Amino acid sequence: MTFEQKYRAAVKRSDTRVCIGLDPDPLKLPTHFEKNVSGVTAFLKEVIDATHDLACAFKPNFAFFGALGADGFTALAEVIDYVPDTVPVILDFKAGDIGNTAEKYAEMAYDVLRADAVTANPYMGWDAVEPFLRGQDKCVFLLCLTSNPGSQDLQRVITENGPLFEVVALEAAKWAERGSCGLVVGATHPEDLPRVRELAPDLPFLIPGVGSQGGDPSVIVEQASSSDGFGTLINASRSILYASSGENFASKARQAEEGLRKSIQGVR
Amino acid sequence: MTFEQKYRAAVKRSDTRVCIGLDPDPLKLPTHFEKNVSGVTAFLKEVIDATHDLACAFKPNFAFFGALGADGFTALAEVIDYVPDTVPVILDFKAGDIGNTAEKYAEMAYDVLRADAVTANPYMGWDAVEPFLRGQDKCVFLLCLTSNPGSQDLQRVITENGPLFEVVALEAAKWAERGSCGLVVGATHPEDLPRVRELAPDLPFLIPGVGSQGGDPSVIVEQASSSDGFGTLINASRSILYASSGENFASKARQAEEGLRKSIQGVR
Repeated sequence: MTFEQKYRAAVKRSDTRVCIGLDPDPLKLPTHFEKNVSGVTAFLKEVIDATHDLACAFKPNFAFFGALGADGFTALAEVIDYVPDTVPVILDFKAGDIGNTAEKYAEMAYDVLRADAVTANPYMGWDAVEPFLRGQDKCVFLLCLTSNPGSQDLQRVITENGPLFEVVALEAAKWAERGSCGLVVGATHPEDLPRVRELAPDLPFLIPGVGSQGGDPSVIVEQASSSDGFGTLINASRSILYASSGENFASKARQAEEGLRKSIQGVR
Repeated sequence: MTFEQKYRAAVKRSDTRVCIGLDPDPLKLPTHFEKNVSGVTAFLKEVIDATHDLACAFKPNFAFFGALGADGFTALAEVIDYVPDTVPVILDFKAGDIGNTAEKYAEMAYDVLRADAVTANPYMGWDAVEPFLRGQDKCVFLLCLTSNPGSQDLQRVITENGPLFEVVALEAAKWAERGSCGLVVGATHPEDLPRVRELAPDLPFLIPGVGSQGGDPSVIVEQASSSDGFGTLINASRSILYASSGENFASKARQAEEGLRKSIQGVR
């Protein structure tokens, strides 16, 4: 199945927009896990078991695995493989490089790690994005307006055609004619979401920043949904993964996920 | 030694500005190497042996190792470790993510892989760059004006303060007050180099695009050197690594390196 098919099936099955970010930090694992790669893998598998039926995607964050070395890379492959085929996996990598290098990143993400989608950085332009497009099969989420304070530094710079993030949204809408594209738009900018949706009416939005970083999911989903009611993936990482440091971490993770799902449903 | 100390020592020792990009593609290895991770590692070690005394840096490209899976990650660590301590290593990763994730990428690059410097993408702003600054110890090269055709798409968008790449150069010069920063400026834009140098007079420039991608090194170095005559690292990857597919690949690699070094010296 394509990324989009998996995503839509998950939404229909569970009426959910919750994407779970997998950012495993050994030091934050519940107390009874070993603080190493084995602990990380065991922890994430239990989280996936407890949450997958209410998730519309999982988003493993490459950095947290890479910081664990080659064994972390192996753990990442194992965790992606463990996610049921019914839930799409977005490799959060924020790659962006010249064509022949981007080809290698696409190979790593899609062929080696078998992800259904990736995040990518648009700064290097079209030929750095193209290798991540594989028709409608996969999906590349381009950074547009990110959730962090530094989003002010360049993304809001005023250009001839409005703030830079609007230029990115327009480019992405254009690139999406050649393959499946989405946008990363932080929940910390609720006032800008309607404009981004206007510029890219049909693209899926990956929306981080409702968890530990703040941002109200009820406002967000209202403003970001596309006309068919799809098109939003609300990401939460730490607030779900580390909902409890006790042995009940998995049920607490599910409870946090369910809380977010309900608060999103409340406004639809 | 800090990145800057290693770089300056290498320049003084060998009067060189050649940075060798390590982009190992198994399919391009000289015919007598195995077309796998072991072949890649053996090949790169011989290239390093043959070229390190005339290089001012090595720049392994993460994508080419990542595409080989966890074993590729191990090979990357082994190759970085193999580079003599006298030559700095720039991990070409083009990372850019929110603070707590960027911390993990910094940990991966500096603590796990033991690189002396990294490349990073400025699109997410200051808090995505800060974790890569470690005072004067390391160096983070920020993408400014890249060598690929897609550099037209966003980097040349006209803002209130000139083209976007000039805004990035100015931001980087400001960020450099808080730790060691450099810029990536492609050799395919010789007409813009003087302006970028004007905006960031003291920053080292990592300059790709003189090899397979074209760009005349004699013009480039003339325009990009900082006032003390340092501040340029001219990267070549494929033109050196794959100078020959025969058993003489190592001497041919050195010959290509030496050719580039001479053509740079010619204009100083």
